Amino acid sequence: MVMRIENDALGAVEIPDGVWWGPQTERSRHNFAVGPLMPLPVIRALIEIKRAAATVHGRDGSLPTTIADSIVQVASGLLTFNDHDLRAQFPLRVYQTGSGTQTNMNVNEVIAHQASQAAGTTVLANDHVNQGQSSNDTFPTAMHMAAYAAMGRLINVVQHTLSTLKTQEQLYRHTVKLGRTHLQDATPITFGQEVSGWRATLEQDVHTLTQARDQLRALPLGGTAVGTGLNTTTSTTKAIISQLISDSGVAYTSMPNKFHGLSAHTELTNAHGAVKTLATDLLKIANDIRFLASGPRGGYGELTIPANEPGSSIMPGKVNPTQAEALTMIATRVMGNDVTISVANSQGNFEMNVYKPVIIAALLESVELLSGGLDQFNRLLLTGMTANADHMRAAVDGSLMTVTALSPHIGYEVSARIAQQALRDGTTLRAAALASGKVTAAQFDEWTNPLRMTRVDD
Amino acid sequence: MVMRIENDALGAVEIPDGVWWGPQTERSRHNFAVGPLMPLPVIRALIEIKRAAATVHGRDGSLPTTIADSIVQVASGLLTFNDHDLRAQFPLRVYQTGSGTQTNMNVNEVIAHQASQAAGTTVLANDHVNQGQSSNDTFPTAMHMAAYAAMGRLINVVQHTLSTLKTQEQLYRHTVKLGRTHLQDATPITFGQEVSGWRATLEQDVHTLTQARDQLRALPLGGTAVGTGLNTTTSTTKAIISQLISDSGVAYTSMPNKFHGLSAHTELTNAHGAVKTLATDLLKIANDIRFLASGPRGGYGELTIPANEPGSSIMPGKVNPTQAEALTMIATRVMGNDVTISVANSQGNFEMNVYKPVIIAALLESVELLSGGLDQFNRLLLTGMTANADHMRAAVDGSLMTVTALSPHIGYEVSARIAQQALRDGTTLRAAALASGKVTAAQFDEWTNPLRMTRVDD
Amino acid sequence: MVMRIENDALGAVEIPDGVWWGPQTERSRHNFAVGPLMPLPVIRALIEIKRAAATVHGRDGSLPTTIADSIVQVASGLLTFNDHDLRAQFPLRVYQTGSGTQTNMNVNEVIAHQASQAAGTTVLANDHVNQGQSSNDTFPTAMHMAAYAAMGRLINVVQHTLSTLKTQEQLYRHTVKLGRTHLQDATPITFGQEVSGWRATLEQDVHTLTQARDQLRALPLGGTAVGTGLNTTTSTTKAIISQLISDSGVAYTSMPNKFHGLSAHTELTNAHGAVKTLATDLLKIANDIRFLASGPRGGYGELTIPANEPGSSIMPGKVNPTQAEALTMIATRVMGNDVTISVANSQGNFEMNVYKPVIIAALLESVELLSGGLDQFNRLLLTGMTANADHMRAAVDGSLMTVTALSPHIGYEVSARIAQQALRDGTTLRAAALASGKVTAAQFDEWTNPLRMTRVDD
Amino acid sequence: MVMRIENDALGAVEIPDGVWWGPQTERSRHNFAVGPLMPLPVIRALIEIKRAAATVHGRDGSLPTTIADSIVQVASGLLTFNDHDLRAQFPLRVYQTGSGTQTNMNVNEVIAHQASQAAGTTVLANDHVNQGQSSNDTFPTAMHMAAYAAMGRLINVVQHTLSTLKTQEQLYRHTVKLGRTHLQDATPITFGQEVSGWRATLEQDVHTLTQARDQLRALPLGGTAVGTGLNTTTSTTKAIISQLISDSGVAYTSMPNKFHGLSAHTELTNAHGAVKTLATDLLKIANDIRFLASGPRGGYGELTIPANEPGSSIMPGKVNPTQAEALTMIATRVMGNDVTISVANSQGNFEMNVYKPVIIAALLESVELLSGGLDQFNRLLLTGMTANADHMRAAVDGSLMTVTALSPHIGYEVSARIAQQALRDGTTLRAAALASGKVTAAQFDEWTNPLRMTRVDD
Repeated sequence: MVMRIENDALGAVEIPDGVWWGPQTERSRHNFAVGPLMPLPVIRALIEIKRAAATVHGRDGSLPTTIADSIVQVASGLLTFNDHDLRAQFPLRVYQTGSGTQTNMNVNEVIAHQASQAAGTTVLANDHVNQGQSSNDTFPTAMHMAAYAAMGRLINVVQHTLSTLKTQEQLYRHTVKLGRTHLQDATPITFGQEVSGWRATLEQDVHTLTQARDQLRALPLGGTAVGTGLNTTTSTTKAIISQLISDSGVAYTSMPNKFHGLSAHTELTNAHGAVKTLATDLLKIANDIRFLASGPRGGYGELTIPANEPGSSIMPGKVNPTQAEALTMIATRVMGNDVTISVANSQGNFEMNVYKPVIIAALLESVELLSGGLDQFNRLLLTGMTANADHMRAAVDGSLMTVTALSPHIGYEVSARIAQQALRDGTTLRAAALASGKVTAAQFDEWTNPLRMTRVDD
Repeated sequence: MVMRIENDALGAVEIPDGVWWGPQTERSRHNFAVGPLMPLPVIRALIEIKRAAATVHGRDGSLPTTIADSIVQVASGLLTFNDHDLRAQFPLRVYQTGSGTQTNMNVNEVIAHQASQAAGTTVLANDHVNQGQSSNDTFPTAMHMAAYAAMGRLINVVQHTLSTLKTQEQLYRHTVKLGRTHLQDATPITFGQEVSGWRATLEQDVHTLTQARDQLRALPLGGTAVGTGLNTTTSTTKAIISQLISDSGVAYTSMPNKFHGLSAHTELTNAHGAVKTLATDLLKIANDIRFLASGPRGGYGELTIPANEPGSSIMPGKVNPTQAEALTMIATRVMGNDVTISVANSQGNFEMNVYKPVIIAALLESVELLSGGLDQFNRLLLTGMTANADHMRAAVDGSLMTVTALSPHIGYEVSARIAQQALRDGTTLRAAALASGKVTAAQFDEWTNPLRMTRVDD
Repeated sequence: MVMRIENDALGAVEIPDGVWWGPQTERSRHNFAVGPLMPLPVIRALIEIKRAAATVHGRDGSLPTTIADSIVQVASGLLTFNDHDLRAQFPLRVYQTGSGTQTNMNVNEVIAHQASQAAGTTVLANDHVNQGQSSNDTFPTAMHMAAYAAMGRLINVVQHTLSTLKTQEQLYRHTVKLGRTHLQDATPITFGQEVSGWRATLEQDVHTLTQARDQLRALPLGGTAVGTGLNTTTSTTKAIISQLISDSGVAYTSMPNKFHGLSAHTELTNAHGAVKTLATDLLKIANDIRFLASGPRGGYGELTIPANEPGSSIMPGKVNPTQAEALTMIATRVMGNDVTISVANSQGNFEMNVYKPVIIAALLESVELLSGGLDQFNRLLLTGMTANADHMRAAVDGSLMTVTALSPHIGYEVSARIAQQALRDGTTLRAAALASGKVTAAQFDEWTNPLRMTRVDD
Repeated sequence: MVMRIENDALGAVEIPDGVWWGPQTERSRHNFAVGPLMPLPVIRALIEIKRAAATVHGRDGSLPTTIADSIVQVASGLLTFNDHDLRAQFPLRVYQTGSGTQTNMNVNEVIAHQASQAAGTTVLANDHVNQGQSSNDTFPTAMHMAAYAAMGRLINVVQHTLSTLKTQEQLYRHTVKLGRTHLQDATPITFGQEVSGWRATLEQDVHTLTQARDQLRALPLGGTAVGTGLNTTTSTTKAIISQLISDSGVAYTSMPNKFHGLSAHTELTNAHGAVKTLATDLLKIANDIRFLASGPRGGYGELTIPANEPGSSIMPGKVNPTQAEALTMIATRVMGNDVTISVANSQGNFEMNVYKPVIIAALLESVELLSGGLDQFNRLLLTGMTANADHMRAAVDGSLMTVTALSPHIGYEVSARIAQQALRDGTTLRAAALASGKVTAAQFDEWTNPLRMTRVDD
């Protein structure tokens, strides 16, 4: 490979000729060679920051116009790259320095390299592209920007799922089935009601996700090295953030205290907390669905779900709830990521938290896995899921727990004895109730009408 | 011990004469004999619910006035009991049935027992005290009520801590010290700025805690057994919640979807997520303080903290940051509790989540540990903490990182070389800078004024 | 309250007259007033250490015989106290100083106070009772001792549970039932085989628990303040450990590197890891059982479990798998405790980890909850659990997955088509197989004999 | 793109012409499109299993020789592929069906496709390549094989790190420095002793990792669909495992109870527990090192670590402990993965745990991140780390905690007063001690010799 030589503060570095990055990127590439690559949304957000900063610095005269313009032009170009082409210039890993400095320098170096050619003069990575900035404020700013966008996509997917659930809720509004508590037979509900519970749970999650996401609009930009904003000014920071707002359409704000923004990732930890709560709720819902779809002959058998793939390499004809399985595996991953992020957030020291890359990588992973996994689950399972109304009704008819409707009339103790008698004798509740002499047939039928017991139309 | 015999749906049970509970409590007491007792705030909330329900049922005629009045009277009496006396009648454990049914029955039985004597007629635990209710809706309602109150106390303690921090922030507004990032010397800040970072972090937590707490006002009461509200009515539920509002002054609402409220503890999981984020932030802050107070001779030595106890059983004269240690141990507990609650919330099935007791016990434990631990930390450590301004200043004067202020004037590369030269030679930055010939003494002194570098007055 | 005055290195302290503790305990009692009390097994282990140390120091002449004898006598007396009486003298909390110094001093002070009376001369807490020791080595030594004993009890409970499972495994050795994978019907197994899987899982856990427990025999005693063993000697340490061995019958060893023992709780973290794995396995097993026992009419209905309590406050006659619920709630607690301990272990600094109390409290809590919860589960659920063989058999007979046994004879593709046809037509597999013309009735019956398919007797 | 049509049990599927996989892989590729790809070590292990199975089936006549030979030949060829070429044929994701069936079928289909060409006859994915196997036993077998190998590499890396530590331990055997407990000055140690503590901690981890890894040798192969071993025989299973042993040199065994092996991942959960304990220990050690290397002027400054990269984009000349940061970020990831795996293991149902892919992916990720991260840390930080002996010595000389050595001679109380006096007066301990009149200069110098206090040569 042909190599070129470039220098940084520690000396000379050989860099493969043809790549756009510089010596600090090259050092990091060799010194940190394990684990996944830095997520591209973080890199895109950093490029947006560089562009906005150069725009402002060019306008206020703190950067020569030629240099500022070339930075803006190169950054704008990079933002049009597809993932594959962008990745080619950003080879660094998540597990690097804990401030993300090396990725910030990767962005500075790539832009400086290309801008130098565009401008026909030397554009410096630190003095020009990074002017008035530090990794310590740009990187957490990029974290907030990337997380904000990703959470928006997740909320969208939950909303789509809610549409599907609302359709099913209406469709099965009067489809009576057995309610189950402690896994034991309980009083009747309609399947529409059961679906409404899932729907209401996810609506609650949307509410929390939206609140948590909103906190991410506050950007620590302008804190520079330690939060004081050395080498920049408050008005410059405001101008850069205004530029970011107009570039993105997002109502970003300048975080009032930058010391906080560099040393504590409270907002991101909280945001992932909301994502994790969603994951635990989805685990419950996916479990409900796969149990209700269990069978076809030896399980609950109340739902039929689409057969998307053959289910078994040894058992011919088997169909499995694979989308539910993928989603619940994702949920466990998200639950683990929450611990990762929580521990990482607890480990700041003084003016800095040096767990930034793992925090944003874990958050983006959770959000993307859930977005993708829930979208698949919605499209390939939920949408095609149908209720087996006859089977549902049969379980209600055989159940003993309609006895609960007798209780206000004949008391809890007597009712309990009737239910136990029916269980012991293997008879219906109706037979045992009539045999008890405490209810007439007419009373029984009036009081224990399953659909009325669901109060769905009250 | 003298025993009396009572019966429940499963048969006869011997109960110690003199206690107020009944057969179901007695069964549970023997069958579940491990772990901590059910927190009293949950029991108090259940008693409030019983009182409000009887008030409404007495008013609307669904309970005989004598019975309703006696229930109200007994419940009101129990609510005046101190912890010790209340506990004597509520002996059940957290690790019981996962719906909290046994604790709900403990409350029903105790009230029924006492109300029977007050009314001079038999008051039944299920038919009267529990009328129109189920453990499945009253217990999660009590969870929300107890958690809401506890989180209010926690927010209060954080607010008190914020007052202390604000005082210190003002006091040390101009006390210059070394900033530190990656644990390495960085550019100067003031100690007031450092404190402001902690303050801003905790303010963010108060914001999130308040939002999360707010969600707990929605009560699943009225769902009864499976969420349908069988054996009660919507208007009765509204009336009971109105009664709870007027009894407590809290703006409770009726949760619109009760299926959700019985089967998913989204709101409590989310609330604990906020508590956990606070814990991780406090771990960071407490670590900062104990490191800054490390020494007295071989550590950072920037802070002096109160000597509350002798620190060592073998090293005479040693004083340790014990309040910080207690608080950070509490933080690890809270981080563990978050996993407990998250797993528990993920494990609902169908119409019910049967991890209710562990969820509320873990949440209340986290909130009470943090409230108490932070209150102690605030009173016994933070309030008496003083900054060693001379020591702080000396570290700034010896530091090389004021070089950063040269960078906009002479460029990053030259600045880096000056700092490295000073480190190699063991000289001051000023000496190395002048020796480089790139700055004059006057320039150096103007550009690197530490207090100005903090931009505290900008 | 009548108070007496005592002094420690920080000055005078008022102590309630009549209690045996001294000024340092009294300070801690006021300064740390939140959370649970220090577990008594830790205090008992510390008393054992004090006794063994005084025995050796009296023997080697480093303590006057009168003083040594009185310490031994008082310690021996304390070790006979029941929990209630012992607790009266040990009022300190878990959330205190992170080294456990205050509890070590509580033990030193109580013994010194009582030994002074016994000896008729002043016995000093630090100079005599704590001679040649530090909290920094005695407390982690007590942690290992308490954890070792507790884990022994847990292993015992698992062994008892294994006995029950082995009985059921034999009893149901030939009881054919449907196997289920992905919750979907699969090929037949016997219920004895299913139980054997649970048994083998718990045997694996016993193996791991035993290995992990074994590591706890190594004691950091002798490290004193920082691991160097200042103020004691290697031979003294050996003698004290020999004394502990002969007092306890446990084959303790002297940890070869004491620096490790004070600053890292690798062994305890690992021990809890084994406990946590057990918890996750029990969650799976308890879930299996409660699902198999679900019904009585609308669930799997394959098992009947004992009705220990009425199950519902509103649904008469309901019986719930309450022991399974308590056990699975415990499992979530243990999973949380594992995070607490892991975070705590990661947070040592230099010569010390100051999360000792929370580590041992969480470990003992996990072990005691699981011991008690599993013991109850074994006695009150497992032992009385019975299989509904007819119901099990019916599910096998209706199943389509016996088709798997055709596959080696007629191929996977053809077999799959037969199973799907049967599902579509709602017929038996046998009917569809014969209709396909690919198998004769004789072949079908020979190949798909359910009991033979289980290979239980191969 | 040119497509070919193939059929599986659900119908026709279009597959890109040229790829070797078949319809089930193609379905999964579309239905599961989110998250990382299945780790190649799992695929390699599956190929090894297919080869061993075909070898045995060819030998015992249950597969035609031509077919068996072609499978063996194709599998052997695939095992020589580099990662890039292998990945081209194995495009499936981790988040797929929870049994790993789709990846097992991917392996079956690729081998069948290539073997058909090699054999000149149709080789079937299910009937031939998968003969006598199920995903349900081959996939967990592959999990054990891949994890066993990976953990061997991790243990190796820890051993290399131990070598470095042992070298430093010897080199600094007599380099006296201040011990620190609670972050406060304590009695002297040598840096060699401090290093020995880290070494002993990692040795303990090697011990545990080795024990945990050993459990993975037991393979669930032969359980087939539900654990009964339907469609295979015990002797065939033994023969295949013998073949795997001779192919790999690893002393695999046949897990005695296959029901356990399919439904519970106790061994893998336990293995990750050991990995997680290592991670928490490394977090502590890395923290110690970066704090001891803090400065260069305003921190502990006891160690100098290599400057591998420029540390700051804004602060010229800054050097940061980046390898420590990457390693501690990895530790938080591993701590999160432990929760993922624990939750996943707890969620088995009946004859199957359907969280297999996430369990093995998380375990391999933890092991590979720690292996790589620790290797880098060892090579790029530990190996080049040097102690600043003069600075260390100065901290000892200024310290007050050598007072501890006076305690056995003049008592704890008097010693404490001397230390406190010296702190108040800002004098040396020696001055305060002599001023107290309790010690002579000669006694002081004899008793408080720092090197002797470390007992390093005792």
